[in-house]
Amino acid sequence: MNIRFHNARILTMEDDREVFEGEVWVSGDSILFVGTADEASEYMRLHQGEIPSWDSERDCHKNLLMPGFKNAHTHSAMTLMRSKADDLPLQDWLGNQIFPVEAKMTAEDIYHLSKISIMEYLTSGITSVFEMYLTPYSVADAFRDCGMRCVQTSCVNNFSQSVELLENYYNDLNGRDEYNSFILGVHAEYTCSKELLEKCAELVKKYKAPFWAHIQETESETKECMERYGLTPIEFFDSLGLFEYGGGGYHLVWTNDRDREIMKKRGLFAVTNPGSNTKLASGIAPIREYLEKGIPVAIGTDGPASNNCLDMFREMFLVTGLAKLKNMDAGAVDAMEVLKMATVNGAHAMGLDDCDCLKAGKKADIIMLDMDRPNMQPINNIPKNIVYSGSKDNVMMTMIGGIIRYENRTFNIGAEPDDIYKKAEEISKRIYG
Amino acid sequence: MNIRFHNARILTMEDDREVFEGEVWVSGDSILFVGTADEASEYMRLHQGEIPSWDSERDCHKNLLMPGFKNAHTHSAMTLMRSKADDLPLQDWLGNQIFPVEAKMTAEDIYHLSKISIMEYLTSGITSVFEMYLTPYSVADAFRDCGMRCVQTSCVNNFSQSVELLENYYNDLNGRDEYNSFILGVHAEYTCSKELLEKCAELVKKYKAPFWAHIQETESETKECMERYGLTPIEFFDSLGLFEYGGGGYHLVWTNDRDREIMKKRGLFAVTNPGSNTKLASGIAPIREYLEKGIPVAIGTDGPASNNCLDMFREMFLVTGLAKLKNMDAGAVDAMEVLKMATVNGAHAMGLDDCDCLKAGKKADIIMLDMDRPNMQPINNIPKNIVYSGSKDNVMMTMIGGIIRYENRTFNIGAEPDDIYKKAEEISKRIYG
Repeated sequence: MNIRFHNARILTMEDDREVFEGEVWVSGDSILFVGTADEASEYMRLHQGEIPSWDSERDCHKNLLMPGFKNAHTHSAMTLMRSKADDLPLQDWLGNQIFPVEAKMTAEDIYHLSKISIMEYLTSGITSVFEMYLTPYSVADAFRDCGMRCVQTSCVNNFSQSVELLENYYNDLNGRDEYNSFILGVHAEYTCSKELLEKCAELVKKYKAPFWAHIQETESETKECMERYGLTPIEFFDSLGLFEYGGGGYHLVWTNDRDREIMKKRGLFAVTNPGSNTKLASGIAPIREYLEKGIPVAIGTDGPASNNCLDMFREMFLVTGLAKLKNMDAGAVDAMEVLKMATVNGAHAMGLDDCDCLKAGKKADIIMLDMDRPNMQPINNIPKNIVYSGSKDNVMMTMIGGIIRYENRTFNIGAEPDDIYKKAEEISKRIYG
Repeated sequence: MNIRFHNARILTMEDDREVFEGEVWVSGDSILFVGTADEASEYMRLHQGEIPSWDSERDCHKNLLMPGFKNAHTHSAMTLMRSKADDLPLQDWLGNQIFPVEAKMTAEDIYHLSKISIMEYLTSGITSVFEMYLTPYSVADAFRDCGMRCVQTSCVNNFSQSVELLENYYNDLNGRDEYNSFILGVHAEYTCSKELLEKCAELVKKYKAPFWAHIQETESETKECMERYGLTPIEFFDSLGLFEYGGGGYHLVWTNDRDREIMKKRGLFAVTNPGSNTKLASGIAPIREYLEKGIPVAIGTDGPASNNCLDMFREMFLVTGLAKLKNMDAGAVDAMEVLKMATVNGAHAMGLDDCDCLKAGKKADIIMLDMDRPNMQPINNIPKNIVYSGSKDNVMMTMIGGIIRYENRTFNIGAEPDDIYKKAEEISKRIYG
């Protein structure tokens, strides 16, 4: 499909370009042109004969086109436990409410349950996710069938999956289809033996690949690692060579100066999950300290049983709001910085370098935000409007790889919402009784 | 209009009644019946001849009917400054960004600017607000013209309004029309002289009326009052007799045990504004301490220049989330408690005792939430779904006094959104240049 969006406001997220009015042209799965109306006319004059015939020309009525949000940490199939395991601290939540239920979930359950999250991502303008769950193949199938980009890492640990499986996932899922890719990783230090991690380090070396895990989410996790090894999880992972080719960590709430020194040196990304860290009372991540150190921050919702909302607008507000509270400084972490985390940095963390901004040649992962809703009025400052007062209510369209997957509250994901919901209810009845 | 809603899920918020399936009947501005389908049949059998003919019978398809949210603290016309004055601490924000702009706003400006907020309230299922702003008559006109309930208090202080005006507002706005009422109050201790407050105390005695103000929002405000009078603002107000007939405070972030003792003794309400307190880095209110003490808590968004979002879903998540962080206890402040704050307690704080829950004889201030959206699936626990994963995206309908003011993203407020937005842009251009 060739689609011409015109009469739009555009926030490219490329460098520091401000919002302007103009056009975005999509051809196949990619962006052909981004520019002002004058630049569009000039391009047409210079490239006569090369401009495709438009399948659709859309007047955007000055609504905003921008890159889709990148949800840089989630566990999609945990919709099953949403609102079933609230108001508990992390270790109790994991040990008593999550692990026993997960033991009963099949790969097929996970395929179906992931789709509810995929739908919710679309309502929030999310075009790709950094996923970690039990059955990577069926997860990949769900994302492929719905047409959403999914970068997975493994949750290998002492009790499930294995380093051999991890290598299989890595080889099988990279390049399998246009929507899926895979990055090396484990669940967390506290669920993995040193031997297991050493085997992972061999894979890191073999593939010269970045490495990811849940890291330093809670204070107790960090303390216990110190007791075990005399090192924080970041120091311990680094001592094993796991970060030789970069990567990063999810959560990273409890880091010290030495940890941040390693993160900087190794080029690690910090994926922050403020909704989940708030709801599980894990703490507030030192976002300003990461920014001051030059450590790139991306944003994840975490899964629907810990957050429970898969909403980048809520997360964006929390990233800056919680930083303001932590530092007791209303000036901490401004809106444009947060938007960069939710788009460009997320894409780079996930290795999706061609999905980071709106620019000719990049993938057409584009959202349209409705500026004619009261929470965007008056249109004083669009980045601040999005971060401080934006909501799912503003998401008019979510396009992934040139295909509109969500528009005007309606989904285009190869299955009917009612069927997806029914399937989830059946699974819930079977597992919870 | 007589409207019968059937095939609905219903959360009445009356006592501890759980969600059930049934019917809600609306006749004129009030609720005629709430009950299960069986109870509805029985009622019809017993009251043949008394049942009105229905203007509309609506199949709710198992979506949720519940009382509208009560936004217990806001300054609606501050849409003008939304996204114009971010990332600043409270005193700098007030002194340099807010007060100079407010000096240029006319009563008519405030009428028009309030309407943008009224629209946003409707998108978030808010049916009444506790308002404080510069020109109470034009604010009241805006709410009356749009058909939303507004309880106002005054922002009288040393620099604007007066105790004489306060008394006029009280007498003129109470009973003026079905949408407006007025409660005694001032801006805050730090903007009012002792003499002004003593005159207010005379009004409190004269009308045997509750009293409200911004109280103990920031640490410095509290400390400065201690330096001035040797008392916290709550102690100081109480010493003047301002709380003889109850009332409450907005914010109440920095209270100690003695303050809470007075609040309990005087039957005061604590209105919490977590979004605003976060964005302005004011701190986290001691919500669990209020609950343990038996002090009723209600929730306000604060105005669109300080939050900047007028979204009860975000606020509800923040109330419980920030309590969990403050107490480092994931079990702090459960979802049902938060829903009670956002509905029943808000109504009682505002003196709207007939708008608190769904029950025969109460006002028909009702919202319908869409359960067929992915963030509500699976339907494991509806109160938890609403508080932890709900969003504006779920608001299908907002009814106030039996009139549907918002449905399927469309407004019924006696004016066109485009005209309201244009008016705001004109005002913004005139004032900001």
